[in-house]
Amino acid sequence: MKMTTAELAAFLDREFPQMAPLRMRIEHWDGTALRLAMPIGEAQLRPGGTVSGPTMMTLADCAAYLLLLGLIGPVALAVTTNLNINFLRKPGTGELSAEATMLKLGKTLAIVEIAIHSAGVDEPVAHSVLTYAIPPAR
Amino acid sequence: MKMTTAELAAFLDREFPQMAPLRMRIEHWDGTALRLAMPIGEAQLRPGGTVSGPTMMTLADCAAYLLLLGLIGPVALAVTTNLNINFLRKPGTGELSAEATMLKLGKTLAIVEIAIHSAGVDEPVAHSVLTYAIPPAR
Amino acid sequence: MKMTTAELAAFLDREFPQMAPLRMRIEHWDGTALRLAMPIGEAQLRPGGTVSGPTMMTLADCAAYLLLLGLIGPVALAVTTNLNINFLRKPGTGELSAEATMLKLGKTLAIVEIAIHSAGVDEPVAHSVLTYAIPPAR
Amino acid sequence: MKMTTAELAAFLDREFPQMAPLRMRIEHWDGTALRLAMPIGEAQLRPGGTVSGPTMMTLADCAAYLLLLGLIGPVALAVTTNLNINFLRKPGTGELSAEATMLKLGKTLAIVEIAIHSAGVDEPVAHSVLTYAIPPAR
Repeated sequence: MKMTTAELAAFLDREFPQMAPLRMRIEHWDGTALRLAMPIGEAQLRPGGTVSGPTMMTLADCAAYLLLLGLIGPVALAVTTNLNINFLRKPGTGELSAEATMLKLGKTLAIVEIAIHSAGVDEPVAHSVLTYAIPPAR
Repeated sequence: MKMTTAELAAFLDREFPQMAPLRMRIEHWDGTALRLAMPIGEAQLRPGGTVSGPTMMTLADCAAYLLLLGLIGPVALAVTTNLNINFLRKPGTGELSAEATMLKLGKTLAIVEIAIHSAGVDEPVAHSVLTYAIPPAR
Repeated sequence: MKMTTAELAAFLDREFPQMAPLRMRIEHWDGTALRLAMPIGEAQLRPGGTVSGPTMMTLADCAAYLLLLGLIGPVALAVTTNLNINFLRKPGTGELSAEATMLKLGKTLAIVEIAIHSAGVDEPVAHSVLTYAIPPAR
Repeated sequence: MKMTTAELAAFLDREFPQMAPLRMRIEHWDGTALRLAMPIGEAQLRPGGTVSGPTMMTLADCAAYLLLLGLIGPVALAVTTNLNINFLRKPGTGELSAEATMLKLGKTLAIVEIAIHSAGVDEPVAHSVLTYAIPPAR
């Protein structure tokens, strides 16, 4: 573990101020799995009382990025190169949480798996796999 | 063509008010291809003066959804089931535009291809393929 | 569970005779997870003594299809609509096995997750997510 | 263009002898787009007289790989890191052809788009995007 929960939270606040309104918070980080939670408000809702796809994609991308930084540290300016997401079930209007685990951490590529849960829904509402390119500079 | 540019724009305003701050606008719609443009402001920028991935995913999802509605009409409550996006190049800070074309429009599934361009960058900055489930109710 | 291991194996032999040379076998099926194993021969190897990508895709597709049939029965003529695979590590020349689990089994869509292991390699060598369309006829 | 059609064909025969039974042939290569054709025989067919998904994935992977080698030369030992494929329509029993174009050719990553056509079917039967990692050694 290269960064603690507090260091990741501080990094997020400092580097991504425009994310602040989303009030995401790191619920769990043990050096292997990271869980990022996000409250749902009007801005994230869609007609029919469901959460927008982009909201879930934003949460997935952020959770995966924090997992990667937690493992390699803030020095690397990693960029997302691919995101694949399957929307599995209709989320409720409750809080979302994304559980991120590393499928592969290589020298130049990292591949992260994400399962997104919605408060009050038993099974995952979305599943995503993201790839990040890690600059050689690392 | 089941909906005109004006009808799609009105639908977007009415059904997705939370999208209004993004000030997306339909630049082109001829019944085959749809181009959706989006100005870039501070909220969409990342450290280093690039556009966030979620911003491009939101644009891709919205452009694909409008293309689908333009072809099947507003009656169908289609939902995104899969999104795959590759980030190809660093966008500039200029306006983004997404060109959407239909790869397949079936009875229950629609598959849309998206190429995203950034003002001032010759080649596409992102490429996405999205799948929508169309309810049998259609 | 709509089909047993023996029923699935018989279905595979009967419906997909051209798969016979691959000598795939169902190692485990408990109604939730299915593991399909495949020996590696010259035909599957690539320069440098690694397994070809198409070999792993074939195994993933077959494992996912058997899992789906095991859950819904042989009546449904399900078709693969999307496959996404990430190649994580270089496989060895030993046997491959694909562990299939259902992410979502809906009325018209099923989404399956696959982890592929290579004998002698601790971590998964590939990870795949597949979507199948299930005909309404079901 | 770093390799000609003849050089690519010779490379394929030499490096991938196990592909020989598939009798794939490069129909077109102009330095930008490459088209790879493949006859369909019993081994590639499925119940109902359609082509198997793995057959199309093999063709896509091979066409994309040849396009990449055609552009960077045989020195680079590029490996597929991700393949995403959407199956759009039922192919016929006629010859398949894959049209490959480069979405991005970077120093360490190449992203290729593939459209697969089936003889006698007007619209594409499959669409794929593949990512290759190019070793720094390049």
